[in-house]
Amino acid sequence: MAEHDPLHTPRIAPTHARTMLALRAIVGEAFALDDDATLARYACSTSGAGTRPLAVVRPADRHEVQRVVELAGRFGLSIYPLSTGKNWGYGDACAVGAGQLIVELARMDRIVSVDPELAYAVIEPGVTQGQLAAFLREQGIELWCDCTGAGPDTSLMGNILERGFGHSPYGNRFQHIAGLQIILASGELLATGFGHYPGSKVTHLFGPGLGPSLDGLFTQSNLGVVIELGIWLMPAAPSVCQFVSTVPRQQDLGGLIDALRPLRLDGTLRSVVHIGNDLRVLSGGATFPFEEAGGASRLPVGLREGMVARAGVQAWTVSGCLYGSQAQVAAGRAAVKAALARTPARTTFFDQRALAAGSWAGRLLGWLGLGQGLREKMGLGRALLSLARGEPGGRFHAGAYWRCRRGLPLDFPAGADPALDGCGLLWVSPILPMRGADALGLHALVSPIFSQHGFDLFVTFSLVNERSLCAVLTIAYDRENAAETARARICHRAVFDAVMEAGYIPYRVGIESMALLDREDDVFWKVAARIKDALDPQGTIAPGRYEPAAARRVQAKQ
Amino acid sequence: MAEHDPLHTPRIAPTHARTMLALRAIVGEAFALDDDATLARYACSTSGAGTRPLAVVRPADRHEVQRVVELAGRFGLSIYPLSTGKNWGYGDACAVGAGQLIVELARMDRIVSVDPELAYAVIEPGVTQGQLAAFLREQGIELWCDCTGAGPDTSLMGNILERGFGHSPYGNRFQHIAGLQIILASGELLATGFGHYPGSKVTHLFGPGLGPSLDGLFTQSNLGVVIELGIWLMPAAPSVCQFVSTVPRQQDLGGLIDALRPLRLDGTLRSVVHIGNDLRVLSGGATFPFEEAGGASRLPVGLREGMVARAGVQAWTVSGCLYGSQAQVAAGRAAVKAALARTPARTTFFDQRALAAGSWAGRLLGWLGLGQGLREKMGLGRALLSLARGEPGGRFHAGAYWRCRRGLPLDFPAGADPALDGCGLLWVSPILPMRGADALGLHALVSPIFSQHGFDLFVTFSLVNERSLCAVLTIAYDRENAAETARARICHRAVFDAVMEAGYIPYRVGIESMALLDREDDVFWKVAARIKDALDPQGTIAPGRYEPAAARRVQAKQ
Repeated sequence: MAEHDPLHTPRIAPTHARTMLALRAIVGEAFALDDDATLARYACSTSGAGTRPLAVVRPADRHEVQRVVELAGRFGLSIYPLSTGKNWGYGDACAVGAGQLIVELARMDRIVSVDPELAYAVIEPGVTQGQLAAFLREQGIELWCDCTGAGPDTSLMGNILERGFGHSPYGNRFQHIAGLQIILASGELLATGFGHYPGSKVTHLFGPGLGPSLDGLFTQSNLGVVIELGIWLMPAAPSVCQFVSTVPRQQDLGGLIDALRPLRLDGTLRSVVHIGNDLRVLSGGATFPFEEAGGASRLPVGLREGMVARAGVQAWTVSGCLYGSQAQVAAGRAAVKAALARTPARTTFFDQRALAAGSWAGRLLGWLGLGQGLREKMGLGRALLSLARGEPGGRFHAGAYWRCRRGLPLDFPAGADPALDGCGLLWVSPILPMRGADALGLHALVSPIFSQHGFDLFVTFSLVNERSLCAVLTIAYDRENAAETARARICHRAVFDAVMEAGYIPYRVGIESMALLDREDDVFWKVAARIKDALDPQGTIAPGRYEPAAARRVQAKQ
Repeated sequence: MAEHDPLHTPRIAPTHARTMLALRAIVGEAFALDDDATLARYACSTSGAGTRPLAVVRPADRHEVQRVVELAGRFGLSIYPLSTGKNWGYGDACAVGAGQLIVELARMDRIVSVDPELAYAVIEPGVTQGQLAAFLREQGIELWCDCTGAGPDTSLMGNILERGFGHSPYGNRFQHIAGLQIILASGELLATGFGHYPGSKVTHLFGPGLGPSLDGLFTQSNLGVVIELGIWLMPAAPSVCQFVSTVPRQQDLGGLIDALRPLRLDGTLRSVVHIGNDLRVLSGGATFPFEEAGGASRLPVGLREGMVARAGVQAWTVSGCLYGSQAQVAAGRAAVKAALARTPARTTFFDQRALAAGSWAGRLLGWLGLGQGLREKMGLGRALLSLARGEPGGRFHAGAYWRCRRGLPLDFPAGADPALDGCGLLWVSPILPMRGADALGLHALVSPIFSQHGFDLFVTFSLVNERSLCAVLTIAYDRENAAETARARICHRAVFDAVMEAGYIPYRVGIESMALLDREDDVFWKVAARIKDALDPQGTIAPGRYEPAAARRVQAKQ
């Protein structure tokens, strides 16, 4: 440790060749890369404005991470940790600033342990939701992991540290973890919660630990490299009942949300309920009809109405799920029915048995207007139920390909990567009060901005906790068209500014928005900067990531 | 603000008289006190080793808090913020070190707002659980606030910032808050979550905000003075069903916990379930029989058996609650029944109607062995149900008076204050895995330590989240007996050391344990100290509170 002194910088800045040599000495030849193809790949972004890294290093274990962090301190490098780098729509695998050293942790993919009785797993950054689901299935462990719709190959930890959310009762993922292990800029290993007490039997069972709870500091931040965490799993429920509701008109959204709120508040709906608009549902099975649209970037009204009508999609589609014993699910179902009876919603409930019965469920889904063709309907129903039961899959991220001229990959969803597949995708995801008036208000606020910039509005409202909605507003654009890309970025900024101005603050942002997060004299960001200084005085780790002043600095250089 | 420079200290340390003058200039004559009676009152501790403060100041609002903090920085004083100072068993209203300036925030007792639709309140530090319950009742707002058993006069915020827990589905209180406002040592006002964005409509609806989540830093810590927070409230449930179970033998505890775990894990039991031993239940209605015990500090075996038998109390008593529609509660009740059918537990369920019916419920409670005399039984049932429905009260902290020679105050529980009433009380509250074997193991570990030091063991196990138990081990002793007080403190230390050694780490500690929280080279506490330095470089706020190195320093002076 003699050579580790965070305040020491070499008198002569190391050459790039010397840096690569030193990195290769740590991780091995094959895992420190700076060839053009690799750099281009990591510069690839759905935002159309990726940053080209200095190099990419892929450590195998925590010791290698520690040595890379120490090296970065000595050499004055900036490192940018990624799990699997699938942060699509929010910056993908790109650093906030160009020229940073990507530290990709995908090789650290050990499921360290699973406790079947107390229902948790301890995982490394590279563990994907598909991998954990497969492990549980293969080992016959009757536990489910919360899933997002981003497909099986995405990192659990990466999503959790961004405070992402899924579909189940554990969908609010950040509230269902305990015990982080973190490499700090100093090279020290920090264990949070109870994990730093030798022999602790409760590290992964009770998150806050004793004394200040530090976990929140390491989410949406750049204060350390998280290399392990305990994630809580749900016991497999004897009965899982999915429901899908639709309403015919745009303005029905308000009543729908006001009807669902009491169910989320009183615990009837313990899982995250999602509500998508017609295009959001449509884009699960179709891409933009470039030829018919005759060059327009937005669906012409007639074409849109035709597509929506042919697919039988309604203005808004709700997807939610009930878990429990048969009696508990029946009671929940009655409560959902009663609440929705006061709205124009048409609702169907289905479980695995109903889907197996085929035609009956198909008839119900058809009645709802959920697309034509039994195969597709069953596909959606099955995918929703699988997701609810901890099996990531389905076509939920197909929407990213909406304006992709090449269309969906033939083998979609297997191995799909919107960033590498050339998709143009930008997200704004504001939080709003769980009130119909707010949802309608937000919709009315952003619709004209999308129109004005020539984009269709894709939106989901998720009942992400008991009191708030998260709206995910998607700008899907043609990334091969430079003018449209520029327009998409202008539209994204306009939407971002509008929701901030309206007091609907995003729960998460992409790298293009990091510089916009503070305002004059914002004590919050001053405090965050003081903490950053205390833990990483050289600013080695991910400068600019949720660090607005530094983001402006590193992005000014580009 | 010209005079505010945290690094400036006056050349001549201010005299005490000058300090008092300056404090009175801020808060007014009546609210800056240093008379003997006041200092003695705040030095009064259930631990028998309170610390005498420099003075007590009681600001009326945030501006006064800000000015007191700034003054403390200038004058080189240490301030010690309290809400209402009823942290019984953990240090009461006492600072970690003597000679600190108590800043008691009880006058800041505004219920700033209540949102009946989105179910939250915004409160100041002085708001008590009884006050909020009364406000909701009087305003006809059908929301309930989670209650602890500590009585109506205790501060909600004080308990939340200590990460205390109550009895309802919102019992895990720290997970049911959003949007803190904090005065920092610099005098700056920090708003966490979304609260620092002007016009935010979602400050109290979604806790983590955007960027690093800082809330955890301000719980169990000394990094700022929290002056406001949003607390989530439950919608009043149409049906609330309390259940009480008992098992006859000590060793039945294991099976009981193993039977309840799946119900807590699968969401059948969303509220915090409490399990008390025979003495814990007995002490709700009786104090130590000093005369019959003939000078023993521990109940002689025969006497204990007699008391327990006469009161009809069983080895362990479970108290839990189901909330929802009638159908949901019925389904939950069936699940609880089925799970407990595999144990020797005898269970009864009751709701308000059943209690109103009187004799029937009385018969059932009698059958369970819950004490003799219908009046008392109904008292317990009613108190449990009230607590579950957001009405703090009952005799749940009567146990603090067990070894109090004066007995319970005549008007107990109104206005009871165990610290001022002379009670001797020390708590150790380790977290353990929610497994019967761990609960029995902990019991076997600590029982001999209590015996050896001549104390009865009072214990509750609370199913505080889905995976862990919190054991609250109570040492109730005669504070008027100096030798017994010394022995109690030795016993407390021995129990603390034993549970730490066994890996069952406390979730919260009293001021006497603050110095023991770190161990050699503990990165966690080094990081906490770096953050403290960054936010409070002079160490103005509560030196030693969850800050082990500083605790040793300030306590060495005593």
